[in-house]
Amino acid sequence: MGKQELRYAARVSLDKPAAEQACLHNRWHPDVPPCGTIKNNEVVKIECVDWTGGQIGNNDSADDVKNVDLTRVHYLTGPFEIETAEPGDVLLVEIQDVQPLQDQPWGFTGVFDKSNGGGFLDEIYPKAAKAIWDFEGIFCSSRHIPGVRFAGLIHPGILGCAPSPEILAEWNRREGELISECSHLDRDVALPPQPKNVHAGSASDDIKEKVGREGARTIPGRPEHGGNCDIKNLSRGSKVYLPVHVKGAKFSVGDLHFSQGDGEISFCGAIEMAGVITIKFTVMKDGMAQLGMKSPIYIPGPVEPQFGPGRYIYFEGFSVDEHGKQHYMDTTVAYRQTSLRVIEYLRRYGYDDYQIYLLLSCAPVQGHVAGIVDIPNACTTMGLPMDIFDFDISPGTPAKKMDMGSCAFASN
Amino acid sequence: MGKQELRYAARVSLDKPAAEQACLHNRWHPDVPPCGTIKNNEVVKIECVDWTGGQIGNNDSADDVKNVDLTRVHYLTGPFEIETAEPGDVLLVEIQDVQPLQDQPWGFTGVFDKSNGGGFLDEIYPKAAKAIWDFEGIFCSSRHIPGVRFAGLIHPGILGCAPSPEILAEWNRREGELISECSHLDRDVALPPQPKNVHAGSASDDIKEKVGREGARTIPGRPEHGGNCDIKNLSRGSKVYLPVHVKGAKFSVGDLHFSQGDGEISFCGAIEMAGVITIKFTVMKDGMAQLGMKSPIYIPGPVEPQFGPGRYIYFEGFSVDEHGKQHYMDTTVAYRQTSLRVIEYLRRYGYDDYQIYLLLSCAPVQGHVAGIVDIPNACTTMGLPMDIFDFDISPGTPAKKMDMGSCAFASN
Amino acid sequence: MGKQELRYAARVSLDKPAAEQACLHNRWHPDVPPCGTIKNNEVVKIECVDWTGGQIGNNDSADDVKNVDLTRVHYLTGPFEIETAEPGDVLLVEIQDVQPLQDQPWGFTGVFDKSNGGGFLDEIYPKAAKAIWDFEGIFCSSRHIPGVRFAGLIHPGILGCAPSPEILAEWNRREGELISECSHLDRDVALPPQPKNVHAGSASDDIKEKVGREGARTIPGRPEHGGNCDIKNLSRGSKVYLPVHVKGAKFSVGDLHFSQGDGEISFCGAIEMAGVITIKFTVMKDGMAQLGMKSPIYIPGPVEPQFGPGRYIYFEGFSVDEHGKQHYMDTTVAYRQTSLRVIEYLRRYGYDDYQIYLLLSCAPVQGHVAGIVDIPNACTTMGLPMDIFDFDISPGTPAKKMDMGSCAFASN
Amino acid sequence: MGKQELRYAARVSLDKPAAEQACLHNRWHPDVPPCGTIKNNEVVKIECVDWTGGQIGNNDSADDVKNVDLTRVHYLTGPFEIETAEPGDVLLVEIQDVQPLQDQPWGFTGVFDKSNGGGFLDEIYPKAAKAIWDFEGIFCSSRHIPGVRFAGLIHPGILGCAPSPEILAEWNRREGELISECSHLDRDVALPPQPKNVHAGSASDDIKEKVGREGARTIPGRPEHGGNCDIKNLSRGSKVYLPVHVKGAKFSVGDLHFSQGDGEISFCGAIEMAGVITIKFTVMKDGMAQLGMKSPIYIPGPVEPQFGPGRYIYFEGFSVDEHGKQHYMDTTVAYRQTSLRVIEYLRRYGYDDYQIYLLLSCAPVQGHVAGIVDIPNACTTMGLPMDIFDFDISPGTPAKKMDMGSCAFASN
Repeated sequence: MGKQELRYAARVSLDKPAAEQACLHNRWHPDVPPCGTIKNNEVVKIECVDWTGGQIGNNDSADDVKNVDLTRVHYLTGPFEIETAEPGDVLLVEIQDVQPLQDQPWGFTGVFDKSNGGGFLDEIYPKAAKAIWDFEGIFCSSRHIPGVRFAGLIHPGILGCAPSPEILAEWNRREGELISECSHLDRDVALPPQPKNVHAGSASDDIKEKVGREGARTIPGRPEHGGNCDIKNLSRGSKVYLPVHVKGAKFSVGDLHFSQGDGEISFCGAIEMAGVITIKFTVMKDGMAQLGMKSPIYIPGPVEPQFGPGRYIYFEGFSVDEHGKQHYMDTTVAYRQTSLRVIEYLRRYGYDDYQIYLLLSCAPVQGHVAGIVDIPNACTTMGLPMDIFDFDISPGTPAKKMDMGSCAFASN
Repeated sequence: MGKQELRYAARVSLDKPAAEQACLHNRWHPDVPPCGTIKNNEVVKIECVDWTGGQIGNNDSADDVKNVDLTRVHYLTGPFEIETAEPGDVLLVEIQDVQPLQDQPWGFTGVFDKSNGGGFLDEIYPKAAKAIWDFEGIFCSSRHIPGVRFAGLIHPGILGCAPSPEILAEWNRREGELISECSHLDRDVALPPQPKNVHAGSASDDIKEKVGREGARTIPGRPEHGGNCDIKNLSRGSKVYLPVHVKGAKFSVGDLHFSQGDGEISFCGAIEMAGVITIKFTVMKDGMAQLGMKSPIYIPGPVEPQFGPGRYIYFEGFSVDEHGKQHYMDTTVAYRQTSLRVIEYLRRYGYDDYQIYLLLSCAPVQGHVAGIVDIPNACTTMGLPMDIFDFDISPGTPAKKMDMGSCAFASN
Repeated sequence: MGKQELRYAARVSLDKPAAEQACLHNRWHPDVPPCGTIKNNEVVKIECVDWTGGQIGNNDSADDVKNVDLTRVHYLTGPFEIETAEPGDVLLVEIQDVQPLQDQPWGFTGVFDKSNGGGFLDEIYPKAAKAIWDFEGIFCSSRHIPGVRFAGLIHPGILGCAPSPEILAEWNRREGELISECSHLDRDVALPPQPKNVHAGSASDDIKEKVGREGARTIPGRPEHGGNCDIKNLSRGSKVYLPVHVKGAKFSVGDLHFSQGDGEISFCGAIEMAGVITIKFTVMKDGMAQLGMKSPIYIPGPVEPQFGPGRYIYFEGFSVDEHGKQHYMDTTVAYRQTSLRVIEYLRRYGYDDYQIYLLLSCAPVQGHVAGIVDIPNACTTMGLPMDIFDFDISPGTPAKKMDMGSCAFASN
Repeated sequence: MGKQELRYAARVSLDKPAAEQACLHNRWHPDVPPCGTIKNNEVVKIECVDWTGGQIGNNDSADDVKNVDLTRVHYLTGPFEIETAEPGDVLLVEIQDVQPLQDQPWGFTGVFDKSNGGGFLDEIYPKAAKAIWDFEGIFCSSRHIPGVRFAGLIHPGILGCAPSPEILAEWNRREGELISECSHLDRDVALPPQPKNVHAGSASDDIKEKVGREGARTIPGRPEHGGNCDIKNLSRGSKVYLPVHVKGAKFSVGDLHFSQGDGEISFCGAIEMAGVITIKFTVMKDGMAQLGMKSPIYIPGPVEPQFGPGRYIYFEGFSVDEHGKQHYMDTTVAYRQTSLRVIEYLRRYGYDDYQIYLLLSCAPVQGHVAGIVDIPNACTTMGLPMDIFDFDISPGTPAKKMDMGSCAFASN
């Protein structure tokens, strides 16, 4: 008489390579075959592997992070065909819950090596590093970053519907142009389609080859569908409105985060985990026109951790870089400076800079665009919650250096 | 026996030109003479004019905004000599209150003309525009933007201590270099020292001439002292820690805002007002070294308006511009796109784009750096509080076009 | 062109006895003549004296509290005739702001002597006591209770419309019956009409005599109109819906509080002050029937101080009294026990019990009905915000006795 | 190398009678044998049955509620022996998580029949009634109360350590005296020890007989140990400080609630469920003396649902009962009146009174002691969150009667 237990629309195995699981894929392409069908208004559970597909271990070395194979990521679960969805519709995705997998109560935060992925501060912190986080109910703590503990604002880093062929072509055009323009730089500026290690679910060899050749990488997010947006408060209880570009929507989700700070600055910076997400799907017919929508919108859920405004220390940063160079209204430079200010503040307690870099990536820090009009300085702020520390970090209390151990580093 | 009423450290007149008031000045320079002395641990009230010094009127034309003389701004109150403060100290500024002047219960938000100041979206919205806001207690509303009403998170846009001669020289060097590098562009990228309309308080002619020649403009904020940071939650109850660079600190404050949105996107974008700020000053000896401080930090007060996380609609933007060009990790581009997404959403209700542009500048919108590592797309979000509207703007309710009147425009 | 400054519907003088001011009165009666008229949809300012009419001084003795003349209180401002309001309507009162009078930046909290007013814990704490609070912007602190400082959640303790003759008769009937039933007790259980010191505004002698004979005291609040409800979050931004019982509504307001804790346990327990309240009045025709309303309802404003749920210590109390007697589902007994638990906790820091009793009356403590069904024990909780103290009161930190001075007491 | 999965200190079966499971018991008594040992500082999971031990079914009849056998309840899990705990210590219980059992994603709210349990409003609503709630992630909704949906603030209704023999004797003395004093009343005022259906875990027959004869019922909570306190925000993340009265503490927990309103007014009023709770146990040696503790205290967790203060409608109630009788400072009467005011408001939408009675018991309503000193009227408030409804219940929007179906009732 009562409601049935919720159906799993997909289950994953942690014991089997991600590349061999038909409900996973690692490129955006309209031709990846659906791994299942979901009714309009249905609520289902969907399991996800961690985004690296199990490349990172619960240990005290960052060798795995240093050598991570980025051609294989992100492993997303899906795509799912949503009944009645058509191009021009909006898919309303209500996130009823996200949880770690019962038998894997841990996650990781990594800093990529500058030569393999890098991160927001890789000019200054080029080495690979890692922290393992243990989950105890709604809280997490790390043996690699002592003195902190916080409740997760758990969310998917990636969710979206498949691009149409036209949209995919546009992505490849504009990102290809950027790559061409920047070919003189010594760093990757975008990731072009990559046939190596492509996984297209249950696709035939032909389709798989096509997906490898054309398919968009899961890094970065893109305006037309959201995708890898890495938004920290797109969490439990959120209602997300996603544009639909192909028949059946072909929704995919993955990259689950136990917690993330605004910016996810160390790149592999949230607390990455395998888990299960519970979603209700509803199709809004002709929603894109009705909402005047070009990019996804969302309404957060009601349960994010609350510290009170007066329990944050806010740091300011401006678009003058660490070499004294003035940049013109460059919010990215400003946010980098803001991050450095927090590192300088916290290292007074005995933390290594890499520990703080990892922490700011995954703890619930608030990153705000403050002023963006006073030429030439963009100003950004980062709010650091004092209550995640088990000692007093307020500016009024003198800092004492403590033994803070170490995060995991690569072997050399 | 009881406490005395608080002392006014400075009072301003709205009936006298700002340039003739000795407690005001409009350049940052160590030689601007103090207009008063404040004891360590003293609490005082300080009156401020609006930042334009009364150039903008409570009327229905934006001619005044279009023709504003930016060489005259910002008029700050101060500098104040804080007893015992020395270079290397930190000045703790506790903002006990900020209020509009009793007899001027209104403020304004402006969009500058692209050729005279511009703003964050001036490529798209080049015209001058204005909205007048009436204050009713803690709330404000505007005849130029019907349908909205909200409580102010009232704060100073500018506060800081005077630069040392060395810091001032560094500002002029680096901003000068940017100006040189960008001389081919058709827009101002920074504002160099400007003798015209300089106001150096009670300075002698010699000093005034020197301040005009060397003094830093009050646009922009700068990392060494904060200054024009335009941070919306640096409001009532905040504790601000400011680096001290000269003997006596020489603290100045101004540019009071009744409310501001993250980014203050239309430039003259907060609700600008004349008012009075109540501050407690405390000197932390040797505070810069103790706090490892290069830029100001602050702890917000406990009273910011609360809407609940589920009462915001969040919009996403990415670093692909409106011409389809892919930018590399450009958070400024991403935030511009985010702003445009909100404009597109709200125009469905009958608002003119300029009305929305003004509104997003001054209403308590939350601008977050979401993801800043997924090359090549920075992702930012803007949270729009639904409860400031007196009609239902939730995506689940069909939008109806209404007659929304008009903001003020320039005569042609 | 712009909006005018708001009109004062009534101004008070602190230099003139309250009993001589025509815009004040101290009884509820339909015949008290209006002291002014307010239009439907008008916003006005209304000044109020403190509820004792200036009987309590800013000094270090509680003699004035001990000897307070309760026949004179509360002095309310009004009544105001609201145009178009008729019996059966609802008067929507939007509180746009409440502020202390500029030249009286202080307030007081008192414990009445058991023999003259008493309070919630008068069996245990029978002596008169007092604390003076100084206002610094949005914050207050007291020389009589060192170590605490908090932002006010400022509000009127009393507001309501005049009773009809029928309602007034009902009040006198039911309260008279209680007095009769309890005549064997050695304490006042209710306050009957009292001709002594009656103030009926500008009433003629006849009317004044009638008001004295029949008029309801301003202690307590009553369900039919609200009145002296003493609700701590009926603060700035609140919308209050009040039943209208007489033509013109005859609205009165007073007993302004800078801050109050749930229960206002020491009776004169909020931070009592003179001040000015800004209100918008709107008449909802036939509102009582539409809303099914028997007692006032309200929607709080958005700006109450936020500490975060994890910044409160909650204390539990049950309906077993301090003599070990079991009471049946007595929430009043439970809340008294809860209050005592907090006193026991805080006295470990060196506070005198009377200081804590005063503090719990006026600081923003949360008093909740927790469980009210598990016979025979009602359970209530009181949440004490840790952040109002300038030292660490968390249970994990050992308590140290400090010199906490003293509150004001009566001379003997 | 990484942390192990958490240990279950106890598991329950839903397929086996509660009375046959050795890790359950249903009386408070120092001699109930421990069902396991937990180390100081250990984190464990503990499973709990619903408090009735499975007497209530997921169906559309309230016959089971009407005929519930209250001699059998509450089934608690435990007692657990906590290593190193001694009388006088405090047991710090950190609630890391609470979740429903995976395979039982539903709970129930009941109104007991007046003749078998009753409830807060049983004079007015004497019939048995029931609502079944389905869980979808962090949210719940009910086919018996359409139009509402909310996130749970999930918590245990009962937790505490065993009484010492002296404390148990005191409980029996004082509750026995109340029963004697009230023998003339036609309702139960307290529940004396009851041998029938006693369950004492794995106790020998002798011990079981003793526990039946002396053991305290699990209704009500009691000041010395907390127990059945039914506190709605003693939820995930809370730190609870419990007095220890016997060697090993003998901690028990049960009566898990998916959500509860302040007061839990319908008695079986929270959303009752079977589930699993994750707890960290830490012993504070000599904690009772250090904390001056007579009753438990707690600090809530950071994740309670947030609606914003302006999203509540608050209702006022006073200690005048529905027959017009004036009670003296009776907070229980005031809270009953407050509840009735909400029922009157919500019935305008088509809800049956019993549906609302059930809803107010389990939805996150805020019940506050407002004023408790203005003789003779205690004033309480109840805050009803508007955002749990899927239609607009604000007073400004005219109410429309809808078809709201029905809750479950008993067959006659």
